[in-house]
Amino acid sequence: MPLPERALISRIRKMSHSARVKLPAGAGVVAGIGDDSAVLRNKTGRDVLVTTDFTLEGIHFRRDWHPAESVGHHCVTRGLSDIAAMGGEPVAVFLSLALPRDLPQTWVDGFMRGLVRQAEEYGATLAGGDTAGSPNGVLADIILIGSVPQGKVLLRSGARPGDAIYVSGTLGGSAAAVLEMERTRKKVSPRDYSRHFRPEPRVEVGRVLREKRLASAMIDTSDGLSVDLAHICKESGCGAEVEADAIPLARVGKPSHEVDLELGLHGGEDYELLFTARPNKKIPSRIAGVPITRIGHMKRGRKILVIDPQGSRSELLPSGWEHFRE
Amino acid sequence: MPLPERALISRIRKMSHSARVKLPAGAGVVAGIGDDSAVLRNKTGRDVLVTTDFTLEGIHFRRDWHPAESVGHHCVTRGLSDIAAMGGEPVAVFLSLALPRDLPQTWVDGFMRGLVRQAEEYGATLAGGDTAGSPNGVLADIILIGSVPQGKVLLRSGARPGDAIYVSGTLGGSAAAVLEMERTRKKVSPRDYSRHFRPEPRVEVGRVLREKRLASAMIDTSDGLSVDLAHICKESGCGAEVEADAIPLARVGKPSHEVDLELGLHGGEDYELLFTARPNKKIPSRIAGVPITRIGHMKRGRKILVIDPQGSRSELLPSGWEHFRE
Repeated sequence: MPLPERALISRIRKMSHSARVKLPAGAGVVAGIGDDSAVLRNKTGRDVLVTTDFTLEGIHFRRDWHPAESVGHHCVTRGLSDIAAMGGEPVAVFLSLALPRDLPQTWVDGFMRGLVRQAEEYGATLAGGDTAGSPNGVLADIILIGSVPQGKVLLRSGARPGDAIYVSGTLGGSAAAVLEMERTRKKVSPRDYSRHFRPEPRVEVGRVLREKRLASAMIDTSDGLSVDLAHICKESGCGAEVEADAIPLARVGKPSHEVDLELGLHGGEDYELLFTARPNKKIPSRIAGVPITRIGHMKRGRKILVIDPQGSRSELLPSGWEHFRE
Repeated sequence: MPLPERALISRIRKMSHSARVKLPAGAGVVAGIGDDSAVLRNKTGRDVLVTTDFTLEGIHFRRDWHPAESVGHHCVTRGLSDIAAMGGEPVAVFLSLALPRDLPQTWVDGFMRGLVRQAEEYGATLAGGDTAGSPNGVLADIILIGSVPQGKVLLRSGARPGDAIYVSGTLGGSAAAVLEMERTRKKVSPRDYSRHFRPEPRVEVGRVLREKRLASAMIDTSDGLSVDLAHICKESGCGAEVEADAIPLARVGKPSHEVDLELGLHGGEDYELLFTARPNKKIPSRIAGVPITRIGHMKRGRKILVIDPQGSRSELLPSGWEHFRE
């Protein structure tokens, strides 16, 4: 197995280099690709955020359903969203990429274009990574480095009983595309399901919530409301009550229609922010142009309850987001 | 494909948690596993180092030849060595791990044990990562975060014509094990080839060289002397001349014997430090207990020449380290 295939890898390396055109000087990335480590400089009094996310062919995407650019875009969005969920600002992105030998170069080009464009959109420089041959399918590990004023990070553990629960944007839009593709066994139009193919991290919303000290706990909805709210509850040692009627459901498809409540409760990969705030905090109905909706409140205990429009309560069990089932 | 297999992954997550027993307070890792990002705090006036390395089954290791603990040990050593090569100090390690469903839990336990033990040996805390199911083979991406006083990082680009070239320890020991396993198609004793199965990063050597301002450029010998010296030459815009006789060759096997010069010149994964120093710098013959050997000097031009014991010169072409050829 004479892997990694050096010609292909050298092309990617070159691409990474050329992507680094707007390397900031002084702060940010001091030295990038071409040394053993990248060197990052933080402004004084800031903590460093680090998050990593695997994106694997066949699990997180399918090459026949997802355009290469969308995969690159999605891949880096996952990391950007993790930084947003801490109230942080993206600084640098690292990509470890393993590619099958028969992968067309056009696919790699599209993937890198989607990734670099989205990273730069949110101020993150592609600063390094690693490449290898893959025995099977495209394997990408994204590492996002972010920055936040010292001690100001927003954790999952800060919620208290009585805090209100909010979510940005709408839920269920990404999962709706997956369901539709699984049902029809065909790809769908990226334009009709943009939340799945071009999700956006809520970096600006997170920054505002942190700067104005509005949120007590925060997470991004990468796994789905039921799972992510359970994380906040667990880390904060509380329960929660959610009003089914209040959940902002995404509109998808053509003609567009609202997704089912089930998708709003359990669908993942929307990359919205789910946060709590003390009851006396006034939360704007929009932050950085994104609607903010109050969906319930934190309670004593451990349980998460959903109240339906008739007022009856049922327990909301975390139902994980399983990506594709082939 | 109902992946990731949640039970297995939750076991790894638990293990990662328990590995975090000695979480340092104040500096270092502020918040680790259990939030969207890890939070790292640097002492004031320090730059952050980031490096990532893929370790893929079938390319970097074979499950039938390499004990699980050795794979975990090796995997994190690659990152630690990159930090050492910058003169940095390891702070935190992140692990993105994708596992095949049929992988025995004992393998995962051994891998994590080898990884965590080696990381802690060099002061790095396992601070997070990501887990997924793997469609094919074990996939591990290691991210090492290090720290270095601001502006004091040792780069590959600092060498000048006339600088002496040094290498720590011995070369060729790791590649000798691979050659032997490929020749015999059998595993070899990890004790007789410890450089391959338990390589050590030269973190302390790198730190001393940086603190005492002894080195002008530095890299670790992960790809092999010919390739890594070519990196220094390229980044520094120089050529080099190496004395074949001076190269410190590893002793391996049982009974132990010295490896061939070819392995000393081209064998990778020894994780020694290759560095240059101005001609007026007095370099100790040992640093942190590790022998340091002068093997040549930097020259004008682009070429790298080897001088054999008879004094004849030939060009040393970078000959990449290709891991396994199955």
